[in-house]
Amino acid sequence: MEVHTTQCCILMGCLCLFYPWSQVCEWREPEELAALLDLELRENGEPQHQLLQRIRDVAKYSVKTNHPRFFNQLFAGVDYHALTGRFLTEALNTSQYTYEVAPVFVLMEDEVLSKLRSLVGWAEGDGIFCPGGTMSNMYAMNVARYRAFPEVKLKGMWSLPRLAVFTSQQSHYSVMKAAAFQGIGTENVFKVKVDDRGCMIPEDLGETIELAKSQGAVPFFVHATSGTTVQGAFDPLEPIADICDRQGLWMHVDAAWGGSVLFSKEHKHLMRGVERADSVTWNPHKMMLTGLQCSAILLKDTTHLLKHCHSADAKYLFQQDKFYDTSLDTGDKSIQCGRKVDCLKLWLMWKAVGSKGLEERVDRAFTHTRYLVEEMKRREGFELIGKVAPVIKERMMKQGTMMLGYQPQGGRVNFFRMIVISPQLSHQDMTFCLNEIERLGSDL
Amino acid sequence: MEVHTTQCCILMGCLCLFYPWSQVCEWREPEELAALLDLELRENGEPQHQLLQRIRDVAKYSVKTNHPRFFNQLFAGVDYHALTGRFLTEALNTSQYTYEVAPVFVLMEDEVLSKLRSLVGWAEGDGIFCPGGTMSNMYAMNVARYRAFPEVKLKGMWSLPRLAVFTSQQSHYSVMKAAAFQGIGTENVFKVKVDDRGCMIPEDLGETIELAKSQGAVPFFVHATSGTTVQGAFDPLEPIADICDRQGLWMHVDAAWGGSVLFSKEHKHLMRGVERADSVTWNPHKMMLTGLQCSAILLKDTTHLLKHCHSADAKYLFQQDKFYDTSLDTGDKSIQCGRKVDCLKLWLMWKAVGSKGLEERVDRAFTHTRYLVEEMKRREGFELIGKVAPVIKERMMKQGTMMLGYQPQGGRVNFFRMIVISPQLSHQDMTFCLNEIERLGSDL
Repeated sequence: MEVHTTQCCILMGCLCLFYPWSQVCEWREPEELAALLDLELRENGEPQHQLLQRIRDVAKYSVKTNHPRFFNQLFAGVDYHALTGRFLTEALNTSQYTYEVAPVFVLMEDEVLSKLRSLVGWAEGDGIFCPGGTMSNMYAMNVARYRAFPEVKLKGMWSLPRLAVFTSQQSHYSVMKAAAFQGIGTENVFKVKVDDRGCMIPEDLGETIELAKSQGAVPFFVHATSGTTVQGAFDPLEPIADICDRQGLWMHVDAAWGGSVLFSKEHKHLMRGVERADSVTWNPHKMMLTGLQCSAILLKDTTHLLKHCHSADAKYLFQQDKFYDTSLDTGDKSIQCGRKVDCLKLWLMWKAVGSKGLEERVDRAFTHTRYLVEEMKRREGFELIGKVAPVIKERMMKQGTMMLGYQPQGGRVNFFRMIVISPQLSHQDMTFCLNEIERLGSDL
Repeated sequence: MEVHTTQCCILMGCLCLFYPWSQVCEWREPEELAALLDLELRENGEPQHQLLQRIRDVAKYSVKTNHPRFFNQLFAGVDYHALTGRFLTEALNTSQYTYEVAPVFVLMEDEVLSKLRSLVGWAEGDGIFCPGGTMSNMYAMNVARYRAFPEVKLKGMWSLPRLAVFTSQQSHYSVMKAAAFQGIGTENVFKVKVDDRGCMIPEDLGETIELAKSQGAVPFFVHATSGTTVQGAFDPLEPIADICDRQGLWMHVDAAWGGSVLFSKEHKHLMRGVERADSVTWNPHKMMLTGLQCSAILLKDTTHLLKHCHSADAKYLFQQDKFYDTSLDTGDKSIQCGRKVDCLKLWLMWKAVGSKGLEERVDRAFTHTRYLVEEMKRREGFELIGKVAPVIKERMMKQGTMMLGYQPQGGRVNFFRMIVISPQLSHQDMTFCLNEIERLGSDL
């Protein structure tokens, strides 16, 4: 019976995907939704027809992030090959720590990471898949600290001078989270000025480093960004690399969002100089549509820093008297113990469409964006939105016609952030989006 | 065409699950396996029949962790309801940070966490799902540090005295990883002695705390274990809580493995006193079979420590002028930004079998274990395995009949660690396991 239920359930899950949802979301107030879903967990189990209804409800009231008009986050859309990889990952249910328990995935992760590194411009190096870009950025900061002060692992921060981290005013908030979590402190993150487009100003980086030193702090880590979260800006990597070289600092590039431009011959110039970095964060679950989660931290290092920094040599997992090459037991590179398999979805999609197919997706997203900008310039009233944005957003959500985020930034009042990823998108969707903002705000 | 491929692929994925695999694994040497899989990623995509063959290969050479004779890790088996929840999670592909983008899952996570807390014995509190038990343990250590020294978030460790962490000699290695990652240093983790069964000796905890103080360190965190990784020991929580109370220390219980005994009226006494802890790690992906990953950190705290400790107030996600109750935007409790949905699989399984069904699973696992111990006592030659274990293990893997891990510990030479979880297991499997070890090692 159990298997029968499952087959129905799996079928339902698949149907949810192919069902032509007309709305991006079916908004309900929290109290109403809680009552509709009947969330309470009870002593006794439920019959099959009720479970099937629950699955339908979960799908119905969830946001359709694979709807072409979901522009709300830095992920969207569905790639069916990647989705197959995700289903297979779930079905095989294993952890990535040893060759013994994940033979296929240990070798596959190695291949995928090596291919991503080659796009960065590195013939060798190291890396690992992490649960999201923030974790990848944290790995970079931790390995950089360990390279500069290996005694930190044993003795903690008390053996170190006060450290300083540098990043732009518009970098992702994970830099602050990392500094807090790793005991460095958010006060020791120095914010470098950006230009109008949101790109770090290298001259200001130089000055900020001198400022930190004059305050007695020891610079060790520069966190540049390729594709900032709100404006999508690419920091100028060459001049930043010059400064890092001169000062002997670890250069990290957070390309969680922007990294995928490296697939494109036309757009990879945005990351010129990335091969000079020490580490790169790259989330294929964003622009590449592999599905959450798929984030890699890539390192240029060939001295096993990642393993030395994070190893704990647990004897029950990493026995040294094993009958195969234990360098394949990559679990000690990770700060996690069990680690989800995140490589299969990307590998299968890449096999299916080839590097060329991935390149086309990136190029298409840029084409749509260019079209959108041109269209917007031709219309009036799109410059400042301010207090009107939250009202337009509320109407948008309640009508469920599309999803688009807004925020203020720096001196700017609220504005909408349009994210163009999904390969299902057309120019018509771009036009729809502008028309819809006009329609929703016409009386404001 | 894409959809057609997918449907075939999905079907294949499901077939892999129901296919009656005779072997737990089909061992291949790494070089041979790499060649068989043809891992290389190329410029051009591949035709459908080749993709289908790739999916078959991935399944064929992966370890069948849902085979009843996979005893190798602290996870095993498959629950088909949980699996349905995992497929649905993948299909809906969202992140858990705001009500806007994950309305169903924000409410559902809240309900599941609340139910887990009530089993711990707390009527209120806080918590979050994390990518694995190590991360959950790290959260506990970080929140404890923040409660004791809130200035650490801003100023880093330089504003703090040297800290000391306490855990048993047989606790999980994630304590060391956490101390290293968070800038506390592994040297500041004090190891408390254990008795023969592997349980922390409370008197030694008291003495070790005094020792740390005499060395000028400031104790702040006691990490107890319910269900150690190798011996499955439960630390005595009542006397540990007495000491933590007296000394004003944060008491954390790592019940990643053992937590699920709280479902069982018969076995929950093993965690007597857990309600006195400040935080508990509990991984339903282990004994409860929800599938990787499903790990919760639960807190007794009701003052929003979790949020204060980890928040970064990103304006593009957590706008304060939203049209709904922004306390539902739980993303700032997390150190991650995007966070996978881990609640649905547990919720759906719980709905399907009820608390009663989960209790039965725990009780059944204990019954099997008791049977195994009795059987083992009746046989000779099972006391010391030593250098024989790696050879038996190699033969076991190459024949693929079952999977079972071994390790040395403390003064003990190599021994096999038997993990009994899967609801598909019978007494016959226990007998098989013992016979198989005898067979594989008969000539040694």
